Amino acid sequence: MPSRYLNFRCSLPWLILFLETLFLIRFFFCFPDVGNIYSPFNFYPEFQGVNHMVVFGFGFFLMVLRRYGFSSTGFNFLLVVLGVQCSVLVEDLLVFLRLQQNEGGMKSLAKAVVSMTAVAISTGAVLGKANPVQLIVMSLVELVIFYVSRCINRTFLQVPDHLTLMHVHLFGAYFGLAVTSRFPEPPPGLEKNRSTPKSDLFSMLGTVFVWVFWPSFNSILADSKMEAVLNTYFALAVSAVAAFMLSALTSKDGKFRMTHIHSTVLAGGVTISYTAHSIQHPWIAMILGLLGSVITILGSHCLQRCFNPAFKLQDTSGVHFTFGLPAVLGAVAAVVLCVVEKGISTQWNNLSSLGYLVFVDVGAFCQTISTALLTGLITGLILNIKLLKTVHVSKYFDDQFYWEVSF
Amino acid sequence: MPSRYLNFRCSLPWLILFLETLFLIRFFFCFPDVGNIYSPFNFYPEFQGVNHMVVFGFGFFLMVLRRYGFSSTGFNFLLVVLGVQCSVLVEDLLVFLRLQQNEGGMKSLAKAVVSMTAVAISTGAVLGKANPVQLIVMSLVELVIFYVSRCINRTFLQVPDHLTLMHVHLFGAYFGLAVTSRFPEPPPGLEKNRSTPKSDLFSMLGTVFVWVFWPSFNSILADSKMEAVLNTYFALAVSAVAAFMLSALTSKDGKFRMTHIHSTVLAGGVTISYTAHSIQHPWIAMILGLLGSVITILGSHCLQRCFNPAFKLQDTSGVHFTFGLPAVLGAVAAVVLCVVEKGISTQWNNLSSLGYLVFVDVGAFCQTISTALLTGLITGLILNIKLLKTVHVSKYFDDQFYWEVSF
Amino acid sequence: MPSRYLNFRCSLPWLILFLETLFLIRFFFCFPDVGNIYSPFNFYPEFQGVNHMVVFGFGFFLMVLRRYGFSSTGFNFLLVVLGVQCSVLVEDLLVFLRLQQNEGGMKSLAKAVVSMTAVAISTGAVLGKANPVQLIVMSLVELVIFYVSRCINRTFLQVPDHLTLMHVHLFGAYFGLAVTSRFPEPPPGLEKNRSTPKSDLFSMLGTVFVWVFWPSFNSILADSKMEAVLNTYFALAVSAVAAFMLSALTSKDGKFRMTHIHSTVLAGGVTISYTAHSIQHPWIAMILGLLGSVITILGSHCLQRCFNPAFKLQDTSGVHFTFGLPAVLGAVAAVVLCVVEKGISTQWNNLSSLGYLVFVDVGAFCQTISTALLTGLITGLILNIKLLKTVHVSKYFDDQFYWEVSF
Repeated sequence: MPSRYLNFRCSLPWLILFLETLFLIRFFFCFPDVGNIYSPFNFYPEFQGVNHMVVFGFGFFLMVLRRYGFSSTGFNFLLVVLGVQCSVLVEDLLVFLRLQQNEGGMKSLAKAVVSMTAVAISTGAVLGKANPVQLIVMSLVELVIFYVSRCINRTFLQVPDHLTLMHVHLFGAYFGLAVTSRFPEPPPGLEKNRSTPKSDLFSMLGTVFVWVFWPSFNSILADSKMEAVLNTYFALAVSAVAAFMLSALTSKDGKFRMTHIHSTVLAGGVTISYTAHSIQHPWIAMILGLLGSVITILGSHCLQRCFNPAFKLQDTSGVHFTFGLPAVLGAVAAVVLCVVEKGISTQWNNLSSLGYLVFVDVGAFCQTISTALLTGLITGLILNIKLLKTVHVSKYFDDQFYWEVSF
Repeated sequence: MPSRYLNFRCSLPWLILFLETLFLIRFFFCFPDVGNIYSPFNFYPEFQGVNHMVVFGFGFFLMVLRRYGFSSTGFNFLLVVLGVQCSVLVEDLLVFLRLQQNEGGMKSLAKAVVSMTAVAISTGAVLGKANPVQLIVMSLVELVIFYVSRCINRTFLQVPDHLTLMHVHLFGAYFGLAVTSRFPEPPPGLEKNRSTPKSDLFSMLGTVFVWVFWPSFNSILADSKMEAVLNTYFALAVSAVAAFMLSALTSKDGKFRMTHIHSTVLAGGVTISYTAHSIQHPWIAMILGLLGSVITILGSHCLQRCFNPAFKLQDTSGVHFTFGLPAVLGAVAAVVLCVVEKGISTQWNNLSSLGYLVFVDVGAFCQTISTALLTGLITGLILNIKLLKTVHVSKYFDDQFYWEVSF
Repeated sequence: MPSRYLNFRCSLPWLILFLETLFLIRFFFCFPDVGNIYSPFNFYPEFQGVNHMVVFGFGFFLMVLRRYGFSSTGFNFLLVVLGVQCSVLVEDLLVFLRLQQNEGGMKSLAKAVVSMTAVAISTGAVLGKANPVQLIVMSLVELVIFYVSRCINRTFLQVPDHLTLMHVHLFGAYFGLAVTSRFPEPPPGLEKNRSTPKSDLFSMLGTVFVWVFWPSFNSILADSKMEAVLNTYFALAVSAVAAFMLSALTSKDGKFRMTHIHSTVLAGGVTISYTAHSIQHPWIAMILGLLGSVITILGSHCLQRCFNPAFKLQDTSGVHFTFGLPAVLGAVAAVVLCVVEKGISTQWNNLSSLGYLVFVDVGAFCQTISTALLTGLITGLILNIKLLKTVHVSKYFDDQFYWEVSF
């Protein structure tokens, strides 16, 4: 093994130092009015929940590989703390360019933490294949592009700010997929990219955390928090129930499969994210949760058998069906629900305004997903240049490559 | 191994689907006034805590068996999410029958999650012996009967609503015991129903979670939250201290035993549950916590040596002494404290009204415990019919029977 | 192995019983006005967070040794619940002696839990070397002395109450160090005082918990919560980023070392603790976080190679560099920031008042650290008397000495 593959000392620390210095300088120059940063807030418990979910929940949720536990939690942690700072600054820059209002430090921080979900999801797609330098570059590029994409949605399509943020699952999943498609496939029959009961247990621990805090995630920036919490809870409950049902139906011998449970219990939360604040009947939320689970389980079978081999994709922790497909379903559901609601209230008279609504929602969706795929592909190509010390396929999925592991 | 034991594909998914369809239909027809469901709430942090405690805390608390980790957390999760939906609907039905006031979605959800504790406790009694189909049937039957029992207490005995809910530990423990008495005993000398250091550690993790969130549990529906939180905290603190003291006193060589710690640290929270909101001096709460621990440790020795063999019971995670006995003690303490307080305030003049108070409290207690035992026995008999594919004794306590486990 | 080393049955339970009786009696006599104890509060979510952090977070944070998992969490739990009761009573005594105002039960409880951090930190220094009896004696002595030290700072140096509490890291670390210096060193080449990947993972779990709840810790008693939360978050974020950077820079082959990450991600929170409520620009918080990480990593190398061997110290979980050095840095930073701010606002005219400010801050710092070291040494000597059944060096770091462990 040539030593240049092994040693990140000459690149990683300096990259981090450079970024951190940049952040510090920007923070030094860019917060003109102090009063505004420390403006009061009344959603500290929700913020705490979302923070916990992103740092702890996703960190352990990703711990599915048998020899990649340190890296799963550690790198997720590193990316979140780097990304939050970057995110606050991008927000700041947008305020400076008058593309957005200044909303005070805590709200800006909350948005930053919510945005980091996109990075956590994308990390799941390249889990074990990208080295830390690649992950850092990926996450910063992704964050900036996600902000640009949100800005387009907000400015040109007049989507409300907190809804643009809910494209975070869609963006994260498809960006991650596009990036991972540029990484060489691991050889078949590799032992290291499978899970053990212990790693599954830790992953279950993380999954339950993400599940429990998801209502906070969907309600933190919504106007009607109450609706958002209740609808999300019902959707999550139904999709957890459906996860067990579908797992027993589709697996061999009618046994449950842990990976099904991991990915499917969260489907309801993703599906409902666009509409949690506006749904007026719990049963709609429940049906969305159910459909989310169905599409996730079907997706996990179809994608892994047909789609992934065809495109030579290797989506390590299955973000395509865990977050991508439910988000697509959620976006479609949002359009349908919006049209039906407006249609009923105007008695289907004002069809042109309905058409405009559909155009806006579909436009925002198409813009987000195409931006994610396109920039993801480009990022994937950039990440595989020699400079970033790509990991050799035989060294995939291994903690010992990045951590001093003592037994 | 005959295949009919193994395969739940023909029963479990369809049972879940049937239930979920039922819930959906009922949700569709049964929420007449929307404004009420999404009524405002100001106890989101407490709700989050209780939700976390029931889904995560109890899930990992039950992970005491060496080869039953997936099932402990997984099935607890499944039962909670199924049960919460069922519970909300039963609540709804009671409102429809004018047996209860409509209190809005969040409060109804909070009550549903609190009620699920009964199911989590009963699951502990049959842990590793019941298959998922049996568990689902048991939990739904238990929930409905618990609502009926609460309804009787509220209507005929005029017990306040949030106090009827605090019978949840008593009901759960004795229902679970009665059910488990109908299951055949595992052969002696079985390896699988013991713990390993790793499973004990995960169980400790869950226990600490339950411990930390218990003040939220006792205060979420109480009027005087402040008292409930403080008294519960003190009772829990004393019972945790006493747990270590008594464990060292009663075990061989004066060493601590992990199972003692698991079950005893929570005793204070259970004991205080009836009176947390009304106790006016912390030292009373502390004495209750101490007595709770003592009864739990003594119970764990006496029951396991005398009572359980005599009745051929096998209470896998010891719910009888962990939740049952402290709840009995708590009920007795509630009567005594209530009588003393009223007695002092009326200078022991109005003995007939005192007698009525005692009658009500003792009546509610007797009604709850006898309903739990009786219906538990019947449920246990029903669960052991052939149709529900009872697990053979040799297959007890084993994840591989229900989960695809890869090593 | 002589049996008198093994058996704590004759000492530990009776010590706990004696203490608990004492607490009960004091609680019985010492809470004169009930209304005050159960006064309203509006910081329950923060309290819950701090409680979770101290009981769960530190318990698992300390789980770094391969065969000491039960004791790490278990004893931390025992000490916290004992200490909280003791702490509430000391607070009560101070109110009785008119050295402090009565502030109601919840605030008093919150302070008690925050104070317990000192004990948790000191426990880290003697981890695996002290038996439970020694730990209990140490923690009670430490708590009382910490209250006396705070009382001196508050009364003679007019330090605000919540700032005196922030000396908790400084006090805990140096008290622990002084105590551990009196314990005999373990033989070199011992296997048991190293970590395994599994114990590192559990420790990471605890670390992330402590990290997530640190903003609650720094803001719970501050007047300007908003500033405290935001500044702490930024400081923690920067120090987490710097932890990865510095770990890769200083370790062999540029790999990350888990122990670096554990200790360094928290440095920012410790460093900022004195000034979180008063810093007016996020970049200052970020620089403090960065400096905290640098001093921790440098400290971890220098101390372990030069200082500890010279003084024959064995600081098991590295509390000197994890909590001690960042706290010293934070105290220095607090003086500098205070002087600069006052100097600018008075245009450097009122130098005598500046001098007084410096005197007060430096005085409080010197008093705290010297009290900690001196009383720590004395406590260390007391702990090593025969009566307390010191553990033989060969039995260090072993769960089996205190717990019934079944495999």
